[in-house]
Amino acid sequence: MQRSQAQVPAAETHQTHQQLQLPAMMQSIGFIMVLVLAGVTLGIPLNYKCSLLGLWQNDLGSEMNISAGNNAGKFFGTYLTKVSATHKPIAVSPLRGSQQMGNVKQPMFGFTVTWSFTDSTTVFVGQCFVDDKGKETLQTMWLLRKKVDSIEDNWQATLVGTNNFTRLQS
Amino acid sequence: MQRSQAQVPAAETHQTHQQLQLPAMMQSIGFIMVLVLAGVTLGIPLNYKCSLLGLWQNDLGSEMNISAGNNAGKFFGTYLTKVSATHKPIAVSPLRGSQQMGNVKQPMFGFTVTWSFTDSTTVFVGQCFVDDKGKETLQTMWLLRKKVDSIEDNWQATLVGTNNFTRLQS
Amino acid sequence: MQRSQAQVPAAETHQTHQQLQLPAMMQSIGFIMVLVLAGVTLGIPLNYKCSLLGLWQNDLGSEMNISAGNNAGKFFGTYLTKVSATHKPIAVSPLRGSQQMGNVKQPMFGFTVTWSFTDSTTVFVGQCFVDDKGKETLQTMWLLRKKVDSIEDNWQATLVGTNNFTRLQS
Amino acid sequence: MQRSQAQVPAAETHQTHQQLQLPAMMQSIGFIMVLVLAGVTLGIPLNYKCSLLGLWQNDLGSEMNISAGNNAGKFFGTYLTKVSATHKPIAVSPLRGSQQMGNVKQPMFGFTVTWSFTDSTTVFVGQCFVDDKGKETLQTMWLLRKKVDSIEDNWQATLVGTNNFTRLQS
Repeated sequence: MQRSQAQVPAAETHQTHQQLQLPAMMQSIGFIMVLVLAGVTLGIPLNYKCSLLGLWQNDLGSEMNISAGNNAGKFFGTYLTKVSATHKPIAVSPLRGSQQMGNVKQPMFGFTVTWSFTDSTTVFVGQCFVDDKGKETLQTMWLLRKKVDSIEDNWQATLVGTNNFTRLQS
Repeated sequence: MQRSQAQVPAAETHQTHQQLQLPAMMQSIGFIMVLVLAGVTLGIPLNYKCSLLGLWQNDLGSEMNISAGNNAGKFFGTYLTKVSATHKPIAVSPLRGSQQMGNVKQPMFGFTVTWSFTDSTTVFVGQCFVDDKGKETLQTMWLLRKKVDSIEDNWQATLVGTNNFTRLQS
Repeated sequence: MQRSQAQVPAAETHQTHQQLQLPAMMQSIGFIMVLVLAGVTLGIPLNYKCSLLGLWQNDLGSEMNISAGNNAGKFFGTYLTKVSATHKPIAVSPLRGSQQMGNVKQPMFGFTVTWSFTDSTTVFVGQCFVDDKGKETLQTMWLLRKKVDSIEDNWQATLVGTNNFTRLQS
Repeated sequence: MQRSQAQVPAAETHQTHQQLQLPAMMQSIGFIMVLVLAGVTLGIPLNYKCSLLGLWQNDLGSEMNISAGNNAGKFFGTYLTKVSATHKPIAVSPLRGSQQMGNVKQPMFGFTVTWSFTDSTTVFVGQCFVDDKGKETLQTMWLLRKKVDSIEDNWQATLVGTNNFTRLQS
């Protein structure tokens, strides 16, 4: 898919539009803001150790910002990679995933990044560890799939690697 | 893609909306059903080749049912594995992911399964291929992470493998 | 290193040659042939189920010929891939590995293929399974590393995949 | 197979012995020692940057000692892991592999470790990088296969991970 930078928010807006107009066409922006705030507030607490919410940086310098989550463990955000296998300009890409919920000290999680600037998709799986001083580390492994033209080329589609993330101080 | 934070929560608002309404207990089941049906109808068309929507079975006999998706490529559903590394009873587990959208013939996708019956999380990345007769195959690779107690055991947390899915006739 | 198909056996011969020429410089080519044959004869018996010795073909059409092994589980041979990530002409490449030894029914093994026609190395790890009718299958996973110029590109060097081999009838 | 550290070189010696005794049964143990030393001397030069020869330690504390190689890129040695997925006592295990040869600055390599104390096999693939100060780092990825009883369990046999090695000063 060739998405311009402008098209992606358009696509997302459309989705919101479509979904919201279904129940009732009358929600105000203010009402939506209340919902958003409520979602964050009722979701994963920000001061919970090993919540994925917040800004993270990995050992390659890539950053991800997990901006919202809910009580079912669902979260979403954006990923800005510092490395790329293509020569196209890097752009922020959306990520969506799930975190293990419940009374869990060092939760596991998985998420998908659909790269907005190149025909690739990456999935990460990992676990959050907290050391004695409360420092959180996300240890992940990932599979990066490049699009191939035919099933005959499927064998060479998938790269594998590791990345560790630590929390960026805001 | 440059997304403001305001846009992303807006897209997710509907979801928050739906979930938040539940504690308020005022929606009828019928209304929720309308929402779900509307989501399917207006989302990824069922007759679109290589839409992920529908029921799939892999080479191990595991089944996944992708029940809803939207125009932004987001989808969710359930996964019922036939194989497990634990002795606990297997139960249906939720899956959530993203599919490459736009005018894409053989789209890529990624999704996360948070296993409901065991402390593990699996991420799949793959691509849908269509052969000359229109038969769709999902070629995937996955990482299965088992929870470990400490970061010292992180090295032995991640299994890797492949799975191919074909569509189950309903 | 650019090796033609003809050079590969030569390289193996040279190695044997080198070891042998130390004690005495007088062995003839014919004598080396005797050694090679003797190595096979005294090594892993050909009629042993799940010996790796012999000619195998995988699901992509690639063939490997494991031509010699010894009682310590060491084996070597050649690999002729049918697929390549480069446009260079494919050539037979040497493989070397180790098999689990002892009273083992369905042994595991690992081996390295140093591609002779491209800057890549692949390692396979797998296990031989025998079904009720005595048919052997080698189930393997592999990592294919492409050479990168600097450590900054190391993250994108490694592909992962699976291959199953069955015995080619001679 | 239960091998003590002392047995491993013995096993290797036996192999050499076996091959050599075929042409003539008269070599003495002393003569074999000369061969082994000659193999090292004539093989990969010790002062060559990014030769794999020598003692290496990875980020988990595991050590490997690559004790001999030859001009065809073949090498062998021993691996002493500091981590194990079993509760059995850890023992030194043999490793065998191949290194990219020729006029190669930062060579790739692959090797197999057949664990002597547990039913597992690991394959590593990697590349040696040299920084401005001449410090060598081996960046590797590995697949660790645990033995499974039947082909039905094959899906859960393979762990994946990374390890970086630096040279231990002797």
